[in-house]
Order: sequence, then C-alpha cells, then structure tokens
Amino acid sequence: MLVDGSRPGILSLALGLPAAELFPVEPYSEAVKHVLSSDPRALQYGPPYEPLKKHIVKLMAQRGVKCRPEQIFLTAGAQQGTNMLARLLVEQHSQVIVEEKTFTGFQQVLEPYQPEILTVPTDLATGIDVDAVEKLLMEGARPALIYAIADGHNPLAVSMSREKRVRLAKLARQYRVPVIEDDPYGFIAYNGYEEPPLCAFDDEWVFYVGTFSKIMAPALRTGWLVVPESLVTFLATVKESTDINTAPLSQRAISAYLDGGHLDQHLSKLKLEYRNRRDAMIDALIKEMPEGTRWQKPGSGLFVWVELPSDVDTGELLRQAIDEEQLVFIPGHAFAVNGHECPKNSMRLNFSNNSVDRLADGVARLARVLKRQRHSVS
Amino acid sequence: MLVDGSRPGILSLALGLPAAELFPVEPYSEAVKHVLSSDPRALQYGPPYEPLKKHIVKLMAQRGVKCRPEQIFLTAGAQQGTNMLARLLVEQHSQVIVEEKTFTGFQQVLEPYQPEILTVPTDLATGIDVDAVEKLLMEGARPALIYAIADGHNPLAVSMSREKRVRLAKLARQYRVPVIEDDPYGFIAYNGYEEPPLCAFDDEWVFYVGTFSKIMAPALRTGWLVVPESLVTFLATVKESTDINTAPLSQRAISAYLDGGHLDQHLSKLKLEYRNRRDAMIDALIKEMPEGTRWQKPGSGLFVWVELPSDVDTGELLRQAIDEEQLVFIPGHAFAVNGHECPKNSMRLNFSNNSVDRLADGVARLARVLKRQRHSVS
Repeated sequence: MLVDGSRPGILSLALGLPAAELFPVEPYSEAVKHVLSSDPRALQYGPPYEPLKKHIVKLMAQRGVKCRPEQIFLTAGAQQGTNMLARLLVEQHSQVIVEEKTFTGFQQVLEPYQPEILTVPTDLATGIDVDAVEKLLMEGARPALIYAIADGHNPLAVSMSREKRVRLAKLARQYRVPVIEDDPYGFIAYNGYEEPPLCAFDDEWVFYVGTFSKIMAPALRTGWLVVPESLVTFLATVKESTDINTAPLSQRAISAYLDGGHLDQHLSKLKLEYRNRRDAMIDALIKEMPEGTRWQKPGSGLFVWVELPSDVDTGELLRQAIDEEQLVFIPGHAFAVNGHECPKNSMRLNFSNNSVDRLADGVARLARVLKRQRHSVS
Repeated sequence: MLVDGSRPGILSLALGLPAAELFPVEPYSEAVKHVLSSDPRALQYGPPYEPLKKHIVKLMAQRGVKCRPEQIFLTAGAQQGTNMLARLLVEQHSQVIVEEKTFTGFQQVLEPYQPEILTVPTDLATGIDVDAVEKLLMEGARPALIYAIADGHNPLAVSMSREKRVRLAKLARQYRVPVIEDDPYGFIAYNGYEEPPLCAFDDEWVFYVGTFSKIMAPALRTGWLVVPESLVTFLATVKESTDINTAPLSQRAISAYLDGGHLDQHLSKLKLEYRNRRDAMIDALIKEMPEGTRWQKPGSGLFVWVELPSDVDTGELLRQAIDEEQLVFIPGHAFAVNGHECPKNSMRLNFSNNSVDRLADGVARLARVLKRQRHSVS
C-alpha cells in the first residue's frame, strides 16, 4: 500500500504521507552529528533514553495531559505501539470494539488474534458513537479493548467532541475496558484550540499511542506510549522479544533536536502549510464537485472524507481515475471493518503530500472523471 | 537483561554486546550526512532500498551463498527477523525442534505460540546433534521449524561441522521442515577459513537471518533475511502491520557506508581485536581455573562456554561473584529450554565487550570467588 501511487506521472491523493519537503532535515542532521561525536552509546544496544522521555512528558503537557516519565514507553513508531498494546490486551478470539470504518493498520494488528469484532457507527461531526459503545457494554459485551482515534480520524477526518471524550473515558473506567487512543495527528491541528486527548480524561483506562512520524519524520521510526506505570515492565519484555530496543541513535538525535527548542517553530510551520493545503482542497471541492457531494472541513489530521452523490461507486471511479487522469485515491470501502457496509460513494482524500496547486489539479481531475462517468451513465 | 551489569564498578562478562569503541562512528556519520543532504526520501516512509539489497547479496557471496536481491528481505535486526519467520511458520501449539540450550531471545519469540518444543542435544565440538533431529523426524515429528545457530553458537560457542551442515540441510529438504538459521556472528570468524552458512547447502528449506548489529552497530536496527522469493510478499504484509517499514535513513546510510568500501577493512579490524580478546580470555582461563574445568576455543562469535568442576553451582557462584568481586556472568541454566536439565556447573562468558586487561582481571576475579567457595565447602 505504501508504494501505490508513487509511480512517476501519477497524482496521488491516496496515502497518508507527510510532506517530505517540510522535514527538519538540517537541524536533524546537526543533531545526529552532535550525538555521534559526543555519545559513544548512541550506536550500542541501550535502554530507553530518559531525556527523551522527559521531552515527551512536556509535549503531552502542551496537549493538557499530565504524566510522568515512568509512564512513557518508547516504541519504533505508532504501528509498533498498537501492536504491543494488542499483545498486552488481546487473547485469541477476544471481543474488541472498533468503529465500522477505521485505520486499516489496526485491523491488521488484530488479525492474528482472530477476535470477535463488535462495530459501532461514527458521526462525521462528533466522532465515535458513544451511545452505541454503551449499549454494547450494557448488553454484556466484555471487549479486550476499544480502539479510538480522537483527533483527525483516519479515514473519517473527524475529531471527537469534548462531551464524547468525557463519556468514552467514563465508560472505559466504569466497565474496566481499556481504550487504545491512536494519535498520530493530534499535534497537527488547525483551529487554534483543540480538545485534550482522551487520555487526559482517564490515565488508568486510556492507553495513548504517539509518534514522531508525522511531526518530525517517519524514517526516525520512533514513537511512544503513555500507559499506567504498572504495565511498563511487561511492555519492556515484549519489546525485547520483538526487536530488542528502539534505535538508540534515533532516540538520542530526536532528544538533541528537542533540546535545541526546534519543535515548536517546526510545528507552527507544519500546521500553517497543512492548513493551506486543506483549504486549497476544500476550495477545489466547493468549486468542482457536483451537487449532493458532502464533506467536513477537518480540524486536524491529513485527510478529507468525501461522500459523492449516491449513484457514484468510488471503486469503479478509481479505475477510471487511474486510466483517464492518472489520479489515485482510496475508496471508502477499503476502510470497512469486517466486511461492514460502507457507503459505496465514499472516498478518503489526502491533502498533506501535494502542493496547493497539485491539490487543485487533483480535484479538477477527479471532477472530470466524475463528469464523464455520470454522462455515460445518463 | 540488557541493562544488567551496566552499573558502574561492575565488571560484566554477561551480555553479548559488541565493543562500542570499535563502531565505525566517523564513516557512518559521514554516510548519514551525505544521505540526508542528497536524498529527500531518506526521512520519508519507504519501500526496501534496492541498493542495500544488492550489497547484501555481495556480502552473502563472500560467505559462499548464492542469492538474488529478490530473496533479501530487510528487517529491523535479527530479532525482528526471527519473529517474522515464526509468524510465517508457527501456529498455536505447533511442534518445533530446538537445542536443549539455546538463545533466550528465540525462546521468547516462540512463547506466544505455546508450541510443543522438542529438544535435541548439542555436541560442544561439532554442534547440534543431527542424529537426534533425524530420529525425531523418523519417529513422526512434524515440526514447523528447526532452529539452528551454525556459527558462533549462543551460548555454546560451537560452530557446526561441515558434515553436520550438509546433513541438516538434507534432512530439512527430505522432511520438508524449514530451518531458521540465526547468524548474528558468522561474519566474525577467527580461523581464516570458515564453513559456508547452512543456507548455502539448501536455499529452499533454510531461511537465513542476518544483521548489521554485530558487524557495524546495533543501534542501526537493520538486518536481513535470505528466503525463497515466493515468501517475500507475505513477509512484506507482516512487516507493514508490525512497524510499517525498516528505517529508510538507516538503510540508505548503511548502503552509503558500503558504497565507500569500508566494511572489509572494518571487519578485519573487528576480527583481529576480538581474536585478541578471545585469546586473552582463554589464556586467563588456562592460568586461573581449577583442574577439571572445560572449554573450547571458539572459532567465531563472542562467547566462551565454560563447564567448571562438577561440584560448582554457577547460580550460587554468580551471587557470590556480584557480592565479593562485582563480577557478572550468565549461568548456563539461563539458556536451558523448557526447564531442560543443564549442567549446574556451566556458564557463558562474553569476551567482546572488555579490553584484554579487563578480561584477564575478570577471569582472575572469577578464580578468587571460586577458590573461596570451594574452600568454604570443603
């Protein structure tokens, strides 16, 4: 999936790649050089790097989360983080609660456990249907976990309302069901004011998954968990048996970069540029899409979820878009859990990985394919 | 386990750490700088880096293994490599064949599958007991895999005889049982002539696990598998669901380092220094150990396996060594599979991670503890 759309000539709105031209190449390069010349342990096996954990505690505090370094567990990115939490929580054939449409990477994480997947709907303005979660729990479901993306949902582009955050955290505690909060995008928010992550509302039953992939660069393969301290020893054993330890050089170089105080400015730059791109995509959608098309302007994350007029099949549309316009996107049904119904007219569009002009061009290409398809049908 | 013995003042012969002072810090630092300044994809998500695969093909050729880039699968180190192969091969409660004493990291890999573990003995001069493997197979065992460390066995320090390599590879083919060949140490051999790895004798039934951890540096978290090409697609799916991809920056920087032609010289330096350390440890053992102590001079790897006189209990000895001499090593029973009997007088000593003088000092400390213990007993 990661290589799709990377063919030359193709305009891809498909993947969730951050913009490579915005990576902090020079200061990170300086940080690596500094670490390699000053710290002989940087290339050795090594335990989690304490100064990096302290930086992460400060980052979380900016989001309204109080935690201690002892609660931070370093991982090789968010995908490994959710894998480790699944290993902790899920047994063969466990029940789990997920949304009807959710991040495919987490569906892959669950696969080896052959779980009984219970799904709940998602409201495109306020997020996961907490009433439906409560109903399942009241009716006796005892899931090993609830999976949630509170900010910049992938693929649905919604951020949860505050009321729902409070209620979901309460339900987790009341029914003693852990929530995995997957948060790759929460630091990239566009409205000036964001709600705190779910884990700010319960630090015992919400396990937070963070990553430097989207706020610095994916190739660093470094992320973190915020979990109750009592779980860290178990996670350390799993980590050692999985891949020994998270790259000590990356840990130290990220920490040196953060020592330099570069991140705040970098995040401001990222948010400004991604907001411009989001706005360019929304403007193009307003200008180009046929009547009856729906979307919401996302408050964070890298995607817009679009529902085209109900007669459109985005699977068919994708084939035509590739053939006729060299355009790629992901049809909504690719994110459907459990073969669950998904509107066949839905699609996920990414706006982080193309310039403003390319985004406008991409939506124009989409509009042309759509026009041809609808003419040929009518 | 990785942090044990890292307390100041402690002299550790316990872990299998490579010598940090021998890491190729400067050329690797140059390689990172070059890659970051010239290749914008180095910090992005990305597919396996083809030039690195080609370098690995050449490295394997130096060991007498013919393979193609299409057979190379890049991993975040050997531990992840064996995990991925286990995911490919092992199901819940599968049978597996391992030696009675083997690398604890692989025992951890097997744990989630709750396998039926069949054990075979190991001869300290020629390696895994292939007769015992054959007997199990003839009697109807149908294991999901056989696990072998052909060179510089951890913890037993033995390298397999050529005859046994040929026979084990033949058995694998005859009974259609895959062998996982875990080879972190094969490139660090001390006798000028080494046997080819097991996978040189059968490229369909032996799956090879390699790593840059010991020949360059562990913190790069980069290793490789050599497998039949037909398995690569499945492994790619598992890899994506595990941690998306192996750090593109590390892949490219290692490749740039190899482009520079640095590795041959670096390996010569490593082998020379580690051989000196091995010899210093053996000399000290000859000088200091009581009659009835046995060991073999290892032809590759980082360890010496020592069997003390039969009245010594190395578990008890370790407690005294820590208290009285600030000395750490690993008692043999720590490597026993399945609670299998292990001589209580055995221990693993590492020689890669201390200077020649420190090694002599370490063995002298061990001798003092041993002398005191035996006096107090008699």
